[in-house]
Amino acid sequence: MELLKRKILECGKIIDGRILKVDSFLNHQMDVALFNEIGKEFKARFQDVEVSKILTLEASGIGIACITAQYFKVPVLFAKKHESSNMDQETYQSEVYSYTRDKLYKIRVARKFLHPADKILIIDDFLANGKAVAGLIHIVQQAGAQVAGVGIVIEKGFQKGREVVEKKGIRVESLAIIESMSSEGIVFK
Amino acid sequence: MELLKRKILECGKIIDGRILKVDSFLNHQMDVALFNEIGKEFKARFQDVEVSKILTLEASGIGIACITAQYFKVPVLFAKKHESSNMDQETYQSEVYSYTRDKLYKIRVARKFLHPADKILIIDDFLANGKAVAGLIHIVQQAGAQVAGVGIVIEKGFQKGREVVEKKGIRVESLAIIESMSSEGIVFK
Repeated sequence: MELLKRKILECGKIIDGRILKVDSFLNHQMDVALFNEIGKEFKARFQDVEVSKILTLEASGIGIACITAQYFKVPVLFAKKHESSNMDQETYQSEVYSYTRDKLYKIRVARKFLHPADKILIIDDFLANGKAVAGLIHIVQQAGAQVAGVGIVIEKGFQKGREVVEKKGIRVESLAIIESMSSEGIVFK
Repeated sequence: MELLKRKILECGKIIDGRILKVDSFLNHQMDVALFNEIGKEFKARFQDVEVSKILTLEASGIGIACITAQYFKVPVLFAKKHESSNMDQETYQSEVYSYTRDKLYKIRVARKFLHPADKILIIDDFLANGKAVAGLIHIVQQAGAQVAGVGIVIEKGFQKGREVVEKKGIRVESLAIIESMSSEGIVFK
């Protein structure tokens, strides 16, 4: 997706040659006009696929998932990372290791929102090691539902996330795939 | 907003006579078609107000803020509740007490995204004691920016949140105001 790649080149910052910071438009400040183009592109890529619900992970996936859901005309469900007294007791859970936070955390979805007949499109902002997406897939599978596909905004193509997901027989569509990055810049695949 | 009130009556659950659970359409599963009607209503209520950016709080405000931003044609910024190695060091911070989590937590926004010329519309899912909104206002004020208004989906009218905000000279627009609730049901104002 050319518009997205241009935005990454213009506004992305590479920290220590290994962290791509896109907080000015993707995961802190959010460029909702760009999100609409992202949503349209996900719909175009998954137009042949039946989707009954979009699943994402709090917090940075939520905005992209909601805007994208307008093109699929389905509800969004987000997996929660943090405890709350309001959360249902009956949940599907998985454990995810976060490299940016250097800790293992539980993700949870209330059981009542996932059913065996559901065709779930998983949407997230980044795919790197695939830990977060694998946790979301694990949750969908516990419900006996089907993963219709995985839609990613930015894939770090030099890490093993895609392999992790494709090994499960699940299709991945990433709108920008980074082949390599360093303090000198970004090369897209 | 009649559609929202109907949805609350149909799908909301009252727990222990004091917690209103709206996880089936607002803050876990998200009804994006309803969010669009919410966004239009916020635009109608704040049509006379200049807005340069929408500010919300992760996680449950993000979806509503992003859909609403389409009607204002502005970006969204969300205050973060959780540490991340990717977060800027230069932040505006405030402290918020959460009743549902029974703890005090820091909220943070990178300084580079708030400027003195900004007119900030604060959007959140709930207004109860006003702690979260007061924290967001505190952040906007640290930047020397102006709060254009506060837009709330569900206000607990029997708690003091509105008073807290209005005392600061800031306008609050809530789409559904609950006058009272108990195990017998909900009365809207």
